[in-house]
Amino acid sequence: MNLRVDLNADLGEGAGHDDELLAIVSSASIACGFHAGDPATIAASVASARAAGVAVGSHPSFADRENFGRSEIEISSDNLFALVVYQVGAFNALATATGSRPNHVKPHGALYNMAAREMKLADAIARAVAACDRSLVLFAPGGSELARAAEAHGLRVAREVFADRNYMPDGSLVSRSRPDALLHDADEAAARVIRMLRERVVRSVDGTDVPIEADTICVHGDTPDAVSFARNVRARLEEEGVTIAAPGSNS
Amino acid sequence: MNLRVDLNADLGEGAGHDDELLAIVSSASIACGFHAGDPATIAASVASARAAGVAVGSHPSFADRENFGRSEIEISSDNLFALVVYQVGAFNALATATGSRPNHVKPHGALYNMAAREMKLADAIARAVAACDRSLVLFAPGGSELARAAEAHGLRVAREVFADRNYMPDGSLVSRSRPDALLHDADEAAARVIRMLRERVVRSVDGTDVPIEADTICVHGDTPDAVSFARNVRARLEEEGVTIAAPGSNS
Amino acid sequence: MNLRVDLNADLGEGAGHDDELLAIVSSASIACGFHAGDPATIAASVASARAAGVAVGSHPSFADRENFGRSEIEISSDNLFALVVYQVGAFNALATATGSRPNHVKPHGALYNMAAREMKLADAIARAVAACDRSLVLFAPGGSELARAAEAHGLRVAREVFADRNYMPDGSLVSRSRPDALLHDADEAAARVIRMLRERVVRSVDGTDVPIEADTICVHGDTPDAVSFARNVRARLEEEGVTIAAPGSNS
Amino acid sequence: MNLRVDLNADLGEGAGHDDELLAIVSSASIACGFHAGDPATIAASVASARAAGVAVGSHPSFADRENFGRSEIEISSDNLFALVVYQVGAFNALATATGSRPNHVKPHGALYNMAAREMKLADAIARAVAACDRSLVLFAPGGSELARAAEAHGLRVAREVFADRNYMPDGSLVSRSRPDALLHDADEAAARVIRMLRERVVRSVDGTDVPIEADTICVHGDTPDAVSFARNVRARLEEEGVTIAAPGSNS
Repeated sequence: MNLRVDLNADLGEGAGHDDELLAIVSSASIACGFHAGDPATIAASVASARAAGVAVGSHPSFADRENFGRSEIEISSDNLFALVVYQVGAFNALATATGSRPNHVKPHGALYNMAAREMKLADAIARAVAACDRSLVLFAPGGSELARAAEAHGLRVAREVFADRNYMPDGSLVSRSRPDALLHDADEAAARVIRMLRERVVRSVDGTDVPIEADTICVHGDTPDAVSFARNVRARLEEEGVTIAAPGSNS
Repeated sequence: MNLRVDLNADLGEGAGHDDELLAIVSSASIACGFHAGDPATIAASVASARAAGVAVGSHPSFADRENFGRSEIEISSDNLFALVVYQVGAFNALATATGSRPNHVKPHGALYNMAAREMKLADAIARAVAACDRSLVLFAPGGSELARAAEAHGLRVAREVFADRNYMPDGSLVSRSRPDALLHDADEAAARVIRMLRERVVRSVDGTDVPIEADTICVHGDTPDAVSFARNVRARLEEEGVTIAAPGSNS
Repeated sequence: MNLRVDLNADLGEGAGHDDELLAIVSSASIACGFHAGDPATIAASVASARAAGVAVGSHPSFADRENFGRSEIEISSDNLFALVVYQVGAFNALATATGSRPNHVKPHGALYNMAAREMKLADAIARAVAACDRSLVLFAPGGSELARAAEAHGLRVAREVFADRNYMPDGSLVSRSRPDALLHDADEAAARVIRMLRERVVRSVDGTDVPIEADTICVHGDTPDAVSFARNVRARLEEEGVTIAAPGSNS
Repeated sequence: MNLRVDLNADLGEGAGHDDELLAIVSSASIACGFHAGDPATIAASVASARAAGVAVGSHPSFADRENFGRSEIEISSDNLFALVVYQVGAFNALATATGSRPNHVKPHGALYNMAAREMKLADAIARAVAACDRSLVLFAPGGSELARAAEAHGLRVAREVFADRNYMPDGSLVSRSRPDALLHDADEAAARVIRMLRERVVRSVDGTDVPIEADTICVHGDTPDAVSFARNVRARLEEEGVTIAAPGSNS
C-alpha cells in the first residue's frame, strides 16, 4: 500500500522560520500582500521554494493587514470574486515570470474559515480560481462548502488536515479556547496522520473514530517548537514509508 | 490623409469624473491598488469602460498611497520587475476574468517620469510587461528611455503627448512651476494636436518647431474644467476628421 | 450619428490576394491548419496583418483539408470542444509570442453554418472559446444559436453580415443556387450596409424590410473582382463617414 | 540519501499500451498531432493521465505523419519557432481547459535528436517554450545543445537518460545498428539507473565509467516486452527506496 501526502506551510508572512520550513514541507502557500507580504517578498519566497524543491501556491486573504487577515469581514460575492482573482492573478504572473509554476490556492485565515461554511463565499472563491487557471488545486477542509464549490467548478481539491490539532466527534477542530485543542507529541501526531492515510479515520476527543480524508497536512512554523514538531512529524512519516509530495498533476 | 490618435485618461483613482471621461476617451488606464484603487474599483472601472466602448490598461505605480504615487522612490531592478509584474498580472487577470481585454500598460506618476529618463528602470518595466503578455502596448514619451526599452523587448509603444501642456525647445514639458506650463484654450490645444499628427512637430515656448510623434494624447479629468477642456479637444479633432481609437492590433 | 463597423476577411488560406485585402479590412480571420494553413503561414499572416494595422483572430475549422472545411461533419460535443480549444489555443499562443493580440474567433465554413443552427455545437464552440480567453469576440450571424451560446457564456459577439449577398424575407441568405444570390454593384452593397447601420434593416428579395444588426461585414477576396468590389464598398462607407474598425474593447 | 527520478513515456501515439504505461510512469509526453494524434486523442490522453496521477507534457514534432516524425527535416529558425509554439500552445490550452496542468515539453524523434546537437534549432525550441510558459520543464539529453539553450532562456531542464540503452565511452548512445545497443535485463537496467542517481556515472560498452546526470528516464511501451521491462525497472527502483515523481516545482 503506497501512502502519499503533502505537507504544507504558509510562507512570506515575516515569521522568520521560512528556511527551516522549506526543508520540511512539499508545498508553500505564499502571502499575496493583503494580510502580509508584498511583490518583493513574494518573488523571494517563490525563489526560495524553487531552490528547496517545494511547490508554491497563492494564499489570498481579506484586505486586512492590521489583523493579519484573521477577522471575519462581510463581503459581497462580486467583491470577493475580484479580491481573489486579483491576488491569484498577481501571484501566478509573478511565479510564472520567474520560472516557477503556481500549483495551488489556499485561502488564508478568516477567509478560509468563512468559505468552509458559507456556500456563497465558497462559490465566489472557486469561480475566481477557475477563471484564473482551471488546473490549480484548491486547498479546503474535506466535506466543507469550499471543497464542494471547487468540485462544482471542476477544480481539483486537496483536503487539508491538521497534525497538531484535536478533532471533535463531528469532525470539526477542537476550539483553540479549550485546553485539549493541541497535540504536543510529534510521534502521536505522526501516528494519527498515518491512520488518516491508512484507515481514513481520526480518533476524536471523546474516543470515537471520525471519518477523515487527508491530502495535505498543514504544518505551523511560527515558533521554534512548531518547526521542530513539524520536522519530527515528517521524519516519522518517512520512516513509515509515506511519500511526501505536493498535490497536482501527478498526485 | 487618414489621421488617427488615441485619447487616454486615468480611471479608478477616486477623482469623481470617471463617467464623463469615459464619454470622451478611447483608452483608460486603471489604478491597480498601489497609488489608488483596489480589486473592487478595478472591476467596476473595467466594467464601466467596457460599457462605454473604451479600451483598458493597467496603471502600475510605486507602492505609495500617501503621496498618490507622485514621490520618486529608489528601487532595485528586481524589486521593480516584481512590482510591475504583480500589478499588471493582477489587473490582466481581473480584466480577462470579467470578459475584457487588457490592451496597454501606462506606468503612473513618479514611476513614469523616472522610467522615461533611467534605462535601468525602463528595462525592468519593459521586461515585466513582456513577461506578462507580449502583445500589450506600452505608453511612453516618444524618444524616452522607456520607449527604447519597450522596443528592445519587442513591445509596441504608444508615444504619449499632452494636449494641455507647453513644450520646451528640447521636446520636454515646460515645468509645472512656470506660469506658461499649461494651455487653457481647447481650440489651440486641438490645433496643436492636429499639427502633431499632420506635420509631426509642436511649436515650443520659444517659437521653434520641435519634432514630436503622437500616438496617444493624455487627457486630465481631475476638475470640471479639465473634463470640459478634454471634451472640446475631442470635438475639434472629430470635426477635422481625426479618428479617435485605442492603439493595438489594428492601430 | 456616429456609425462604425468592422470589415473582415479570411487570410492565410493560400488565395493569393492577402496583401490587397489587408489594405481594405480591419479584421482578418486566419486559417489554423485544419482546412488550410500551417504554423509558418499563421505566423506570416499575423505579421502581415500587424504591419497593415489589421486586427487578427483565429478561424478554426473541421479537420478537412480535402474539402477546405466546407463539408458538414458529425462530431460529438466533447470532440468539438477539443477541436476548437486546440486551434484557438495554437493560434493565440503564436500571435501572442510574436507580439500580436488575438482579437476574435470566427468558425470556418461548414462549422460556422452548423453552429449557427445547432445549439449543441454552438455551445461547445462558445465553451471552448471562453476556456481559452474570455475576452475574445466571437463572430456569429445575428440571432443565430452561435450568437445565443456566446452570450450565455459571457462572450462578446460581433454580428456578421454579408455585403455581397441577398437576403430572404426571414433574414437568411438567398441560397447560392439561385441566380439572385449575389449583389454585383459595390455602390448598392455599400448603400445597403449603411442602411443596416442607420436603420437596422435590409431590403429582402421580395421587397420587404427585414431587421438586421451589423457589427462586422464579411468581405471576400478569392477573385480580383471580389477584391475590387470590397475596395469600392470600403471607399463608399468612408465617404459616408462610417468608421471602419475592429470590434473589441473599444467597440 | 534521498534518491528521486522521473519515469517518462510517450502517449497518445496509437501504440496500444497507454493504460499499462500509465501505471508505471510519472510523466507522459503526448503527441500533438504532427507525428501522431489529434485534438480528441490529446484530450483523452490528458484525462487518462490525470486519472492515473501522471504528469503531462507536450511532445511536439516535425510535421511528418508519414514517417512518424523520425526523418530529419531542414527548417529555418523562424519556422521551427512557429512549429513549436503552435503545438505547445495547442496542447497547453487543451490540458488547462480540461483542468490539467501542462508540466513539460519533450521534442519528438528527429526533432529531439537534431536539437540535441544543433544550437540554432535548440535555441528556437527553447525560445518557443519560454514564449508559451516560462515555468515548463524542457526534457533534453544532459550536456546537449538543447539543455544549454533551455538554461540560457531560464527554463528548467530535466536531463533524460535511457534505461534500456547502452552508452559509448563519450556518453552518447550506442547506435541501434549495433548488436549491443539494447539492455534486456531489467535488474541490470535498474542497477544502472541507481548508479546514475547515486554516483552520477554509467558504465560504458568499453568498461569505463562515463559521467551522466539523470532527472528523467525514458521508458518505451511499443511492445508487451518493453512494458514488462519498464514495470520491472520501476519495481526494482522502488525496492531500493528511489522516489518516482515528475520533475517540476517540487523536484
